[in-house]
Amino acid sequence: MKHAAVLGASGYTGAEAVRLILGHPMLKLKALTAYSRAGEVYSDVFRNFEGQDLPPLVTADEVDWDLIDVVFACLPHGASQETIAKIHDRVETVIDLSADFRLADPELYAKTYGRPHEFTELLSERVYGLAEYSRDKLLGAKLVACPGCYPTCSMLAVLPALEAGLIDPDRIIIDAKTGVTGAGRKATLNFAYSETADGAQAYGIGNHRHAPEMDQAIADFAGKVSTVRFTPHLIPMNRGMIATCHVELTDDTSISNLREAYVERYTDEPFVHVLTEGQVPQTRHVRGSNHCQIGIFADRATGSAVIVSVIDNLTKGSSGQAIQNYNLTQGWDETLGLKGVGVFP
Amino acid sequence: MKHAAVLGASGYTGAEAVRLILGHPMLKLKALTAYSRAGEVYSDVFRNFEGQDLPPLVTADEVDWDLIDVVFACLPHGASQETIAKIHDRVETVIDLSADFRLADPELYAKTYGRPHEFTELLSERVYGLAEYSRDKLLGAKLVACPGCYPTCSMLAVLPALEAGLIDPDRIIIDAKTGVTGAGRKATLNFAYSETADGAQAYGIGNHRHAPEMDQAIADFAGKVSTVRFTPHLIPMNRGMIATCHVELTDDTSISNLREAYVERYTDEPFVHVLTEGQVPQTRHVRGSNHCQIGIFADRATGSAVIVSVIDNLTKGSSGQAIQNYNLTQGWDETLGLKGVGVFP
Amino acid sequence: MKHAAVLGASGYTGAEAVRLILGHPMLKLKALTAYSRAGEVYSDVFRNFEGQDLPPLVTADEVDWDLIDVVFACLPHGASQETIAKIHDRVETVIDLSADFRLADPELYAKTYGRPHEFTELLSERVYGLAEYSRDKLLGAKLVACPGCYPTCSMLAVLPALEAGLIDPDRIIIDAKTGVTGAGRKATLNFAYSETADGAQAYGIGNHRHAPEMDQAIADFAGKVSTVRFTPHLIPMNRGMIATCHVELTDDTSISNLREAYVERYTDEPFVHVLTEGQVPQTRHVRGSNHCQIGIFADRATGSAVIVSVIDNLTKGSSGQAIQNYNLTQGWDETLGLKGVGVFP
Amino acid sequence: MKHAAVLGASGYTGAEAVRLILGHPMLKLKALTAYSRAGEVYSDVFRNFEGQDLPPLVTADEVDWDLIDVVFACLPHGASQETIAKIHDRVETVIDLSADFRLADPELYAKTYGRPHEFTELLSERVYGLAEYSRDKLLGAKLVACPGCYPTCSMLAVLPALEAGLIDPDRIIIDAKTGVTGAGRKATLNFAYSETADGAQAYGIGNHRHAPEMDQAIADFAGKVSTVRFTPHLIPMNRGMIATCHVELTDDTSISNLREAYVERYTDEPFVHVLTEGQVPQTRHVRGSNHCQIGIFADRATGSAVIVSVIDNLTKGSSGQAIQNYNLTQGWDETLGLKGVGVFP
Repeated sequence: MKHAAVLGASGYTGAEAVRLILGHPMLKLKALTAYSRAGEVYSDVFRNFEGQDLPPLVTADEVDWDLIDVVFACLPHGASQETIAKIHDRVETVIDLSADFRLADPELYAKTYGRPHEFTELLSERVYGLAEYSRDKLLGAKLVACPGCYPTCSMLAVLPALEAGLIDPDRIIIDAKTGVTGAGRKATLNFAYSETADGAQAYGIGNHRHAPEMDQAIADFAGKVSTVRFTPHLIPMNRGMIATCHVELTDDTSISNLREAYVERYTDEPFVHVLTEGQVPQTRHVRGSNHCQIGIFADRATGSAVIVSVIDNLTKGSSGQAIQNYNLTQGWDETLGLKGVGVFP
Repeated sequence: MKHAAVLGASGYTGAEAVRLILGHPMLKLKALTAYSRAGEVYSDVFRNFEGQDLPPLVTADEVDWDLIDVVFACLPHGASQETIAKIHDRVETVIDLSADFRLADPELYAKTYGRPHEFTELLSERVYGLAEYSRDKLLGAKLVACPGCYPTCSMLAVLPALEAGLIDPDRIIIDAKTGVTGAGRKATLNFAYSETADGAQAYGIGNHRHAPEMDQAIADFAGKVSTVRFTPHLIPMNRGMIATCHVELTDDTSISNLREAYVERYTDEPFVHVLTEGQVPQTRHVRGSNHCQIGIFADRATGSAVIVSVIDNLTKGSSGQAIQNYNLTQGWDETLGLKGVGVFP
Repeated sequence: MKHAAVLGASGYTGAEAVRLILGHPMLKLKALTAYSRAGEVYSDVFRNFEGQDLPPLVTADEVDWDLIDVVFACLPHGASQETIAKIHDRVETVIDLSADFRLADPELYAKTYGRPHEFTELLSERVYGLAEYSRDKLLGAKLVACPGCYPTCSMLAVLPALEAGLIDPDRIIIDAKTGVTGAGRKATLNFAYSETADGAQAYGIGNHRHAPEMDQAIADFAGKVSTVRFTPHLIPMNRGMIATCHVELTDDTSISNLREAYVERYTDEPFVHVLTEGQVPQTRHVRGSNHCQIGIFADRATGSAVIVSVIDNLTKGSSGQAIQNYNLTQGWDETLGLKGVGVFP
Repeated sequence: MKHAAVLGASGYTGAEAVRLILGHPMLKLKALTAYSRAGEVYSDVFRNFEGQDLPPLVTADEVDWDLIDVVFACLPHGASQETIAKIHDRVETVIDLSADFRLADPELYAKTYGRPHEFTELLSERVYGLAEYSRDKLLGAKLVACPGCYPTCSMLAVLPALEAGLIDPDRIIIDAKTGVTGAGRKATLNFAYSETADGAQAYGIGNHRHAPEMDQAIADFAGKVSTVRFTPHLIPMNRGMIATCHVELTDDTSISNLREAYVERYTDEPFVHVLTEGQVPQTRHVRGSNHCQIGIFADRATGSAVIVSVIDNLTKGSSGQAIQNYNLTQGWDETLGLKGVGVFP
């Protein structure tokens, strides 16, 4: 058994990490931290944990880090690197769910997040953990940067085609839709029920922070140069994310070739499922689970295709993949603690 | 390991049973039956099971029942008793989730469900499994009738007070609200999204079939005669049920007395949680779990109180309690397979 | 044409008032005020007004009140009385949508709202405008207090029976459910989408501020003493309110008598509709309209009944009734500006 | 006053037509037809019309068409052309909301809708009524084909750029999202609340019937050849449609040029509003109204842009535009009966 701490347990990704750790056979939850809500009983912060035996919610300074094996850092970017810098020497493994260690280039980080990276030496050691593409590097890793939810959903959709040279890396348009939990647990008018229910909208058009991360993933995992055109939308659901990827096939590539490449690439993956022809992925079928479903379709114009990927933004898009990554650092079966299927309906 | 079959696996309670059995350490799923959808791959019927290793969906006649230990019958009433009559001798235990064995009196059954009960000899052997009140009878039971979702939610709310003589059994008004999955998986205009979203309504006022079952539970578990006034509502959510019980305290009973009785009654229960004063139960906090949360409040008029109970109608209100009941028949830890907390948000 | 101003136009009831005034043949919108958002273009505050010719959003001090005939005050209580006290002498009519002038008794106001009433001389002049019960007093009224949303919905449901002596005033239990817009336009975690969608909860149990107002309405309009037992719930919809009233019939009263009393009482009402036997009111059918639908049902226990009433909390429950009340003060057809039917689905 | 009939009044577009006609100062509703529900009182079919004075619901054969001036045909394709063929000689104007007269080429119709067009002589006379682009042809038109909801939303978004030669007609990708009412009023499992709420999915990928209609509109209104790549999605809301158009600018075109073209094109349009820079259109702001809001954004890749358009699929996307088109056939102010702003929230 390893001893786990969740940093930033008062947010949604923190709570999802706690939920999953409670069901993990090799993890024991030893510490929960929060900033403004430290001192509260955890089930008062998230009532779904009523009746569970959980550590109290404390500040990061109150934790004896030498007793902790693994930290799941669910903090905002900026706060995350600062806290990790303080504690990473005292624990075996840090799994960071924030954006702080996703971008390898500190200048790109500064440009994207509007502040310099202050721990570049840590940055150079980190492993970017898109689980299905990072397995070899994750074994034994000490600091893992978990991908953003949009990059996870989108890259699982386009990387097999890019690896195999079946689509044009210069012409990738990703039109994504997310549930509201992606915005975090905040008192913000924009995310009030009355402003969010029964309607839809795009946001962050042309400048979302996850776009440079996608370009990086395409370069790192498929060796291709790309400037992904990325438009996210906010739609009225709690959890769930769908990436609709509009792509163009390279010469002589057929939809059958494309489908075959995906089936082959993902056939042994426990969490990524390529649906059979004509089946349409739906976010509701992966709700609360670490699964991803992918559908592949011909578009009308010759040589064009649509690849659709769905995940739960809080699970595979965040805390579920974090657990999966940790399992891989330990050389464990990567499905430990993640065997639950989607809660549908 | 016991071998389990789910009858009626193409409905929502069937799918929830399958989901829970997959996570149960002592159960192995051996057969899945359906009527109109027999022959289909189960993950084509419920896409959330994509990638799981599951038996094919067959008709009940195609199953070799001698290889099955326990049957979870998730069929409509009528069909359930017919199928159970055929197979109960060939299996160890039958857990029936339908209404067929809930009412002990066949005449009341006939009046309530509009058709005679055809297997009254089975009826006399069945155990009514409101888990927290039926434990002693469940051990070794061969045929368990699981309560309806409304009786489960409502009786957990009122029985402690009735047992202790703290409220007037003649003056119980239960105003309940359920999510749409309670209607089952059907193509019905009434439950179409456009007819159900962003609005609310009562239904079955004064004549809902679960009301006589509540009277029976109050008689059996608390020894009191009652004609519960029961009004259910349909509200726009998938899962979840809230029973708001308007009650009148007996002479000399205070709200403190009432609260104490609940805390005492449920203090050791793994799935029933009495919230501290002022805390309000919310259905979203028990979503996908077998938990029930209860709040107790003084009303404005002297001597009146409000007891609020929330469950997930598909889990504690149906398939979760079914598993809990089966655990109890076997003398196992009743939380086996049910340790998951609510999936929130 | 009368010149209208909306005070507090940056809230939901303010925006609904603006929407309705734009469609009113005898009103011209001349001023819109807000506090924190003064200076903004109104369509930047509520984008649904894009393309409309509207006055700028200013502070109350910037308005020349001598040019205004009627003020619709959509301010929070407290702020409302202060502003009205300053301007009521300069305009013909004030229609107050806040709670400030609802309770006739300043001591009850102080107890209920936690602050003394500071303009009791105004209070004594005000007319409480439950339109269907206040017509005779509304003609020529200078200051109208519009009822709360819950009292409007609930009193329309119980007053005919109370007036006719058909139900016991001591035994009225109102279990109400509202959409989220009832909470106003606020950045509050409690009303964030992720905390409000796909779930339900009660709130304000036993101490909601609208309960004393209901007792007052029962006394004033039906001459009966009552302590209404009132429990509101928050459910996941934008607009809409349902009051499920659990009542007890007086001796010799039948459900037919009850129904007849309602049909007779409301037969000429343009906005209140008693549904035929068996029809169930649904909030979605009155969405965006000033209509109320009422259903009457026998409960199971002898002598008990359920009366269900639905309105749109922002329209009949607030700004729609405010317009209706103003029409009545002027002796106009009370449906002016309110002819729109519910926007369904 | 003109006398109007609504054919197919038991569907959602029929009900929306009825709602709008009731508020139209120059139209009087004289007949309502339906097939399976003929004989019912209309307010029993759509309860939001309770209390309105409406004609009975009859079959088309029961109507004396000589008394009708204008027919709004809200029938399924196929049924629509058959009925129109029978009655068009007896009325002044037919406004068809079905797909039957949208495609000018009967062979394309046959290929797209899987059945031959049987009234090609009528087809050759019809006017395709995308109101903002068809005004000159609509005046005096006898048979108007109203565009599909997706073509309306999408073409308003891309036509100004195509007319001005600012985007490449060969590279238009439209990723659209619709509310569930777009599927019509049907008892279908796919559109049940539990299968549609809290989740999202694409559908009709690569082969949706509205795509050829878009190609036709681009050819007719902008004189360009295009094979639009079109992917619609179903998201959990009642009304609303968003078209996210991913386009590529022609050489030397800047985002400013693009924006200017839209502002200029739509500046005098009563229903189409180009939002100022940075403002994001949201479907909820046009709910229940005939308005369209458009936003224009630079994408990340040089020379690419995103144009976002939102409408209410039942109003501007269907019955609202139908009324607008009829107003134009009569030479009336096209906003008659359509002045209502969006019902928000």
